[in-house]
Amino acid sequence: MTLPSALLEQAVDQLATLPGVGRRTAMRFALELLRREPGEVKRFADAVRELRENVRYCERCCNISDSPVCAICANPSRDARTICVVEDVRDVIAVENTQQFKGLYHVLGGVIAPMDGVGPDDLHVRELLERLDAGGVEEVVLALGATLEGDTTSFFLFRKLQERGVRVSVIARGISVGGDLEQVDEVTLGRSIMDRKPYEQSVRR
Amino acid sequence: MTLPSALLEQAVDQLATLPGVGRRTAMRFALELLRREPGEVKRFADAVRELRENVRYCERCCNISDSPVCAICANPSRDARTICVVEDVRDVIAVENTQQFKGLYHVLGGVIAPMDGVGPDDLHVRELLERLDAGGVEEVVLALGATLEGDTTSFFLFRKLQERGVRVSVIARGISVGGDLEQVDEVTLGRSIMDRKPYEQSVRR
Repeated sequence: MTLPSALLEQAVDQLATLPGVGRRTAMRFALELLRREPGEVKRFADAVRELRENVRYCERCCNISDSPVCAICANPSRDARTICVVEDVRDVIAVENTQQFKGLYHVLGGVIAPMDGVGPDDLHVRELLERLDAGGVEEVVLALGATLEGDTTSFFLFRKLQERGVRVSVIARGISVGGDLEQVDEVTLGRSIMDRKPYEQSVRR
Repeated sequence: MTLPSALLEQAVDQLATLPGVGRRTAMRFALELLRREPGEVKRFADAVRELRENVRYCERCCNISDSPVCAICANPSRDARTICVVEDVRDVIAVENTQQFKGLYHVLGGVIAPMDGVGPDDLHVRELLERLDAGGVEEVVLALGATLEGDTTSFFLFRKLQERGVRVSVIARGISVGGDLEQVDEVTLGRSIMDRKPYEQSVRR
């Protein structure tokens, strides 16, 4: 489709770069923004620009943070002997919401994905190894997605971490709590049978 | 979910104001933008801000246009006796793509939607009536969506236009070309039976 305005064309082009947004949706976004007051749209644009320009990361765990050390790393009641490695800030929030983890985090900022040109050097791997070299860490929990890229990254980290004599664990894969067997894909179900555990260990008290 | 950064919170809040975008998608947008170069994100933000600040509308048909009179209105080979009334620029593009309309357009900028606080005065109705009063228009084709709001707006315009002695038509509703009867909803199918026409008129030559 040819648009009757270069300004509109430019805005639609840019909005269509957002993940999962095609030109049709981008046009819907643009027309919606046009209905707002200019000041409102300026606030929208400024919030996006300022996020990228002024974003800061925790100097310990690499999570997004407004202070040099994030609230979790700065909390003395967290268990500094255990580090949970995750892909991004969303995963930190997801694990925090479970209230099952009392240790610290390390945010990789992605997973190894050769197809997208993301290698180990593009992730915060060096910072993780430096934390281990500083001492005091006993266990690293790998909590990456159960995808090809997540598994590749976990294996890469496992080898690096093993050299340093730290205990490496990985979060359990199995059927969802509340899930029906017939709705589980066969790979997950097969994995959950292989990884079965004594019944008496499985009961939550 | 509580975010670890006010900057991130602000950007996610703003991105979540886009139509159909929830906080989860907004977070995905924000993290994707964070992976880009600051200059790239600035271009994104500027394109959005500039669209709203510098947008201009054709002084005749009210379509978005970089010039005072848009390319369609300025084209002397278009038939100025027929005006097709549409909701927004997307509809102009859609009708243009059919290559079945040679007249001019009038862009309302919305439809009457009392629930959303949109009344006739929020639309470019006055501009349409002024065009008719200027003379030379013989037919107005109403090409609004087949929704409650679209129908309300069409009826409102029909009454205004009738007073001015202009011919008012509305685009046909019926089953889609290439559509199976069993997949058509019953209101549309009922309408297409009521609006049936002599077979010899239906054949495209």
